[in-house]
This record gives sequence, C-alpha cells and structure tokens, in this order.
Amino acid sequence: MELTPHKTLREIAGYMNAEYDGNPDFKITGINEIHRVEKGDITFVDHPKYYRKALQSAASTIIINKKMASPNGKALIFSDDPFRDFVLLIQKFSPFRPSEAMISPTAKIGQNTVVQPGVFIGNNVLIGDNCVIHANVTINDHCVIGNNVIIHSGAVIGADAFYFKRRPSHYDKLESCGHVEIGDHAEIGANTTIDRGVSGITTIGEGTKLDNLIQIGHDTIIGKNCLFAAQVGVAGCVNIEDDVILWGQVGVQKDLTIGKGAVVLGQSGIAKSLEGDKTYFGSPVLEAKEKMKELALMKRLPAIVEKLSS
Amino acid sequence: MELTPHKTLREIAGYMNAEYDGNPDFKITGINEIHRVEKGDITFVDHPKYYRKALQSAASTIIINKKMASPNGKALIFSDDPFRDFVLLIQKFSPFRPSEAMISPTAKIGQNTVVQPGVFIGNNVLIGDNCVIHANVTINDHCVIGNNVIIHSGAVIGADAFYFKRRPSHYDKLESCGHVEIGDHAEIGANTTIDRGVSGITTIGEGTKLDNLIQIGHDTIIGKNCLFAAQVGVAGCVNIEDDVILWGQVGVQKDLTIGKGAVVLGQSGIAKSLEGDKTYFGSPVLEAKEKMKELALMKRLPAIVEKLSS
Amino acid sequence: MELTPHKTLREIAGYMNAEYDGNPDFKITGINEIHRVEKGDITFVDHPKYYRKALQSAASTIIINKKMASPNGKALIFSDDPFRDFVLLIQKFSPFRPSEAMISPTAKIGQNTVVQPGVFIGNNVLIGDNCVIHANVTINDHCVIGNNVIIHSGAVIGADAFYFKRRPSHYDKLESCGHVEIGDHAEIGANTTIDRGVSGITTIGEGTKLDNLIQIGHDTIIGKNCLFAAQVGVAGCVNIEDDVILWGQVGVQKDLTIGKGAVVLGQSGIAKSLEGDKTYFGSPVLEAKEKMKELALMKRLPAIVEKLSS
Repeated sequence: MELTPHKTLREIAGYMNAEYDGNPDFKITGINEIHRVEKGDITFVDHPKYYRKALQSAASTIIINKKMASPNGKALIFSDDPFRDFVLLIQKFSPFRPSEAMISPTAKIGQNTVVQPGVFIGNNVLIGDNCVIHANVTINDHCVIGNNVIIHSGAVIGADAFYFKRRPSHYDKLESCGHVEIGDHAEIGANTTIDRGVSGITTIGEGTKLDNLIQIGHDTIIGKNCLFAAQVGVAGCVNIEDDVILWGQVGVQKDLTIGKGAVVLGQSGIAKSLEGDKTYFGSPVLEAKEKMKELALMKRLPAIVEKLSS
Repeated sequence: MELTPHKTLREIAGYMNAEYDGNPDFKITGINEIHRVEKGDITFVDHPKYYRKALQSAASTIIINKKMASPNGKALIFSDDPFRDFVLLIQKFSPFRPSEAMISPTAKIGQNTVVQPGVFIGNNVLIGDNCVIHANVTINDHCVIGNNVIIHSGAVIGADAFYFKRRPSHYDKLESCGHVEIGDHAEIGANTTIDRGVSGITTIGEGTKLDNLIQIGHDTIIGKNCLFAAQVGVAGCVNIEDDVILWGQVGVQKDLTIGKGAVVLGQSGIAKSLEGDKTYFGSPVLEAKEKMKELALMKRLPAIVEKLSS
Repeated sequence: MELTPHKTLREIAGYMNAEYDGNPDFKITGINEIHRVEKGDITFVDHPKYYRKALQSAASTIIINKKMASPNGKALIFSDDPFRDFVLLIQKFSPFRPSEAMISPTAKIGQNTVVQPGVFIGNNVLIGDNCVIHANVTINDHCVIGNNVIIHSGAVIGADAFYFKRRPSHYDKLESCGHVEIGDHAEIGANTTIDRGVSGITTIGEGTKLDNLIQIGHDTIIGKNCLFAAQVGVAGCVNIEDDVILWGQVGVQKDLTIGKGAVVLGQSGIAKSLEGDKTYFGSPVLEAKEKMKELALMKRLPAIVEKLSS
C-alpha cells in the first residue's frame, strides 16, 4: 500500500512510540508485508530466522524486535512486538470504512459497463469500460477492474487476507490494506473468491479465465491467459506465470511458482514450484507421465507381490 | 436454444455474409452446440477431426470451414471461422439484456412460492408453486424452476458456460444462450453454482438434492433422486443417471456418463464413464473393493519389500 | 430446539394422533435428533439397529415404530413412521417464517457492529458488539453471533441441514429447526457456508478462523482457536476440538472426532476419528510420517520391482 502523503521515519516511529536508528527525515513511501515489499516501504520482522531476509529485502524501513545498527541506506524501528505495531500502522493509514450505499459514491465505473442488481461496489473501486458485473457480486474497497471484464454472480473480489499470528491464547489478525487488480478481458466465475493483498496487490492477468467456486489467496499474482477450472484453490503469495492451465479442484500451496505454460490435471496438489511447459498430476503432484507409470505399476503390484511371495 | 421465429438458410447465411450449400428456404429452428444438437438446429465445426461427427449429427445445418457438398437433408454454411460466426449468431439472437429490478417484470412466479430478500430473478425466468428461494440467490435469464423446489442462499443458477477457444494471443468465449431447468422437489444448496447450457439445457432431475458449494457445468444432465454432498464438482456435458450418490468433494470430468444407482465415495476423481449399481473410490477412481485391496496392499508393502530385499 | 412453552406427552402424542406409554403429564422440553439429544428432549428412532442407542440416550421421550414398555424414566410414542411424525413436530413448532425486510425487525444487533449493504439477517438473529458483517452475507433465523466477529461477503450462516430419508420413490427431508452459534473473535471467510443443526446447534468456537469457500455441516461442533484453510469441507455431527488446523481442501466425514491440536495437511480425507497433537496427510488419511514413508517407497518401487523380477 502506498502512503499518501509520504511519512518520515520520525513520524512513523512516533505513532508506535518506538526508538529507531536512521535519519529522522528518512522518507517512508509505502507499507508492505515481506513477500511483496518494494523500495521505500516499511515492513516488519519478528523472528530471528527471518532477520536476514528482511534486512536484505527491498524494504527501506524495518520494524524489528532486536536492537542493532541499521544497514546502509535502511532505517530500523525497534519494537517488542513488530507484528502488533505493523497492524497499528495499517489501522491508522487504511482503516475500514463502512459503506451506506450498494455502490459507493467514490467508485468510478466506465462506459458501457453493466452493473446488475444486488452488486456491492466499495469505496474507491475503479471499473473499466464494457464490463458486465452480474447480480450479487461483491467488489470491496480500492479494487481495480480492467476493461471488457466479466464477473459472474456471487463472486467476492477483495475479501481480507487469511493471515494470522499465533499468540499463546489466541490468533491475532494481520489487517489487510492491499487490494485486487483484474486485467482486461479476464472472466471471474460465479461464487469465486479473490482475497486482497495483505498490503500488496492480488493480480489476475489480462485474458485469464477463472471458473466458479475458485479461491485465490492474498498477494498471489496470476499471469495472462491462464485457465482455471472450477473449485481450484490457490493459497497466498503464489506466482503463476502466463498460459497456465489448472483443471478442476487443483490445490496450490503458498509462496511457490508455476512456470509458463504448465498444465496441471484435476485434483492435483502442488506443494513446490513447477517448471513450465510440462503436464502434472497427483497429490502430491508428479509429472503426469511419472504418475501414469506409478498408477500402472500399482495395477500390476498384486500379481507381482503374489509371484514374488510364492 | 430455439429460434423464434424460425429462420431460413438464406437469412442465417446472410447475417454472416457467407456462402452456403442447400435450399435457400431450408428452415433453421434452433442453435445448438454439437453435444446437445437436435433436428432443425444449426451447429458449427472447425476441426477436421470432428467433421464426421458434425456431419453425422442430428444437426440440420452446419457451419464448417471446408467447402464440400451438403449431405442428404442437411445444409452447409462455409466460414473461415465457424466459431466466430456461431458466436455472432448467439449474440444476434440471444443478446445479454441487463436488468433494472431485482425481480424482472418478465419473470413468472407460482403460487405459494416464497422469495426471500436479496434474490435476483432474471428475464423470462419461470418458477413453479410452493418453492422457497432463500436470501441472496441469483437465478439468471430463461431458467425454469419446477414446483416444491428449495434453493438455498447464495446459489447461482444459470451463470455462463466455461467454454473458450484458444487463439494465438488469447481465448475467445463461446457465448452462452442456453439455460437451466430444475425439476420438482429438487433442493439446491447454499452457494452452489449451476451453469446454463452453451445453447442447450443444464438439467437437475426431479427429487435430486444438491448440498452446498457444488459446481455443475454447462449442458450437464442429472437424473432423478440423485444425492450430491458438499463441494462436488461436475464438469460440462456430463450425463448422470437416476439415483446416483456422489459424496463430498468428488470431481467429475466432462463428457462422460455415470450409470443409474452408482455410488462414489468422497474425494474420488472420475475421468471416464462408470457403470451403474456399483460403488467407487479413489482418484483416479476404481471400484471401491479394488481400491480397498490396493490400500491394504500398500500397508503391507514395506514389510514385503523388506522381506524380499533381504 | 427448546420447546417454549414445554409440552406434555399427552399433547405431543395428540398432535400425531398416536398411542404412547408413559405418564400423560410427562414434560417434553425440547426436540432433538439423536446425535445431539438432551434430557427432556423428544427424539425418534425407526430402525431396530438403533433402538438400543435411542433407548439408552439422554432423550426422555422417543417416537418409535415398535410397541414395547417404556424404560424407567422415559416415555415412548408409537408410530408407523417416526421420521414423518418427527418432521411433523418440527413443522408445527418451528415453521419457516418468510421475511420481508433485508434485516428482520426481530433481529438484535450490538453496539459498534457494522452491517454492510446487501446483508440479509433473519428472524430472531442475535449479533454481538464490534462485529463486521460484510456485503451480501446471509444470516438465517435464530443464529447467534458473538462479539468482535468478522463475516466476509457471501457467507451463508444457517442454511438447512443436508439430511434426507430414502423412500422407495424419493427422498424425504428432515426439516431443520436448529441454528448456528459463532463465538467471540471468530472470523468466517467469503462464500463459506455453515449449516444449522437439524434440531441442535452448529457451533464455531471462540477465536476460530475459517477461510473462504468452506462447508461446515449441521450439528458440527468446532472448538476454540481452530484454523481451517480455504475449501475445507466438514460433514455433519463432527466434533473438532480446540486448536485444530486443517489445511486447504481437506474433507471430513460425518460423526467423528478430531482431537485437540491435530494438524491435517492439504487435500487429506478423514473417514475416522483422529487423535490430537499429531500431523496427518493423505486420502484416506495416515499420520504424516507414515504417509511420507509410503510416498518414499512408491518412488523406489519401480527399481525394486525391476530388481526382484530379474
């Protein structure tokens, strides 16, 4: 999420009443979670295992629970609970604003776009030209929809990220302040759900077609001209390149990449990155030709075992 | 989809500015995609692999991308892009008509039928007597609901078919002009989605009960008194006979048949037709007793391998 | 479901025009299906296989299709079709009441709770303080939502149980009269569906977080601080204890228990009860470490078979 206007290190540290190391006038231009962080951003880290990743990331300012000198060109803010203070910033700079109307007066809707009855369009939503938004769709705050997009009934664009931190007695929620962007000529199926980024942008590429009842997690980026069949589930922070085909009920775990042109057969489960231009099957997934060999072997197995046991 | 009024070969070829072979006054009574084509229909074929199937189908008029003499009793229309011209016909004869009201004034709703708040009912929808349509349901244009039907909240009846043609740079959409018919005493679960036929009728048989979050693809025909548990996904053009039971999260691929009385256990994946009156399990599916043997063998396998390796 | 006011055995038997054994003034205080029955309740049993379970249950009055003397402290009502007569009672004491407004005037909504546009709230619903109910949510009659609860768009709380009795020619529906209760600080994902109890209470524990497109069946009880990822499906009458984590697309069959602190990996299928504090994987599910051994063995299998066959 961009900070408009930009803030200084002194101001931000002041909000959380925290000490810091760095030039007090150091500019902070955005708030982002570590997976989608860019230069100028503030992010947080609260586990020694990830200190190095955070300190070497593109982030310019890091909320951290260890006192140390700030690396070259970066600023540090010291907090006993960086997660809590990061949430504090999101709540301050991107608070939830209730809507009174089904279509917010701050939403902008392009020419020749049809919005059917029962559609909710939140604050500052942008919708392009020649779209059809079918009945009972929900598009939450700040989402951006391109031109010639079709969104089928019951789809929910921009619900919160499913991102929680375990505390001894309960879970704390990482409040979301990101949004969803859907490219031109994309189509989103009925009752499909696309979560907004925690602080970044969940992206559906130009020309990509999603069938019904699909789940797309926060901060996931889907390329152009992909085709996902019904009930596919994609976790958060996944990168799916162009021309990927996922058949029905495929599941994709978080924080991995599926290469350009990959095809994944129905009900497969993907737990690690896949190379492009290959076909996959199984849960856990294998190359389809390997999986087929395995299935053929399984069929022969009873006879083999019997023969060998005799 | 029926053409009302009927058109002549000359008229239809004229709309697409195409040459044809056949009697110019030959009657075209409907538009249908090859899976659900009937006598009097116009359909299209654009790949040599399917020429024979189209020419031998019930269709009376075929848009085809090869010049040839029309077979006995049929007419041909010649097009360099039959898919494009078929879509053109659908757009001409069944254009999308936006709705202004939550319940279209052209919808007909039977006696003692309860329609809860937030329900969208499109143009020319027919709903029978003694139904309950729960809050926030969507029923799109031309769908037909029988008597004593219950549709739970958030269900979407009649969204578009998920049917695209790959072009070099993008996908083109096969516009849908079909609808959904739901038989008497059927029950449709919350947030379940049933796509309309591309040009035909997606059918839910009398007395069939669908649980929540189920996907039913375009042109699929489901028989009477079937029972599908939650999160089942059925692709397009599937034929499911009477009394079939699918347990939770079962996936069914397109263009196959499941015989009367078949039972399929949870999370199974069905990629080819199944005989009736048997029980199945697994992904890919086997007869349940075969799958059980396989699972038992898997449990014994480590000991067998160790013994044989020693 | 509690009967308010309480009824006597004579009255209840009178409604169904049935003979009975017991004190005519015996108090019947509630109606409940056998899985969730309590002292004072009336329930039903119609299969000899379950007679003993019903007669030994906490129920005080049992509708049964066999004449016998009532056990100590219980009453019996004799019916040729106990299912039919049980449904008759539900229809009499808990008939469906249509709503005219999006928010029923009998609903009670707490302080600082935000209800976004397009939300349906049924009769006698109770919602606590500081909740956010996002656009196009449905909350059906009698449901109870705690404080600080977030419900995302399109979620359906309190649709009917999926519970049918096979008759020779069709299915009969067991009408639902239960409801859903959601504890404080719980979060319910977009387009998630939670069915109400047949006669009891489907319960989501305090602090539990459900992602999008999840199905929770009737009368299921989920403990505190559980975390379920998207597209999980849980059948009816399941007991899930505190701190359970189910990853994406896991399926859980009815009438079983998952112990405290269990973790189940994505796409697993659970058909029997699981002990707590262990990690599971597979369909059917195994302890994850067993499943990993099985998968490793599968990879080695081709080489082993080849070696042994030579």
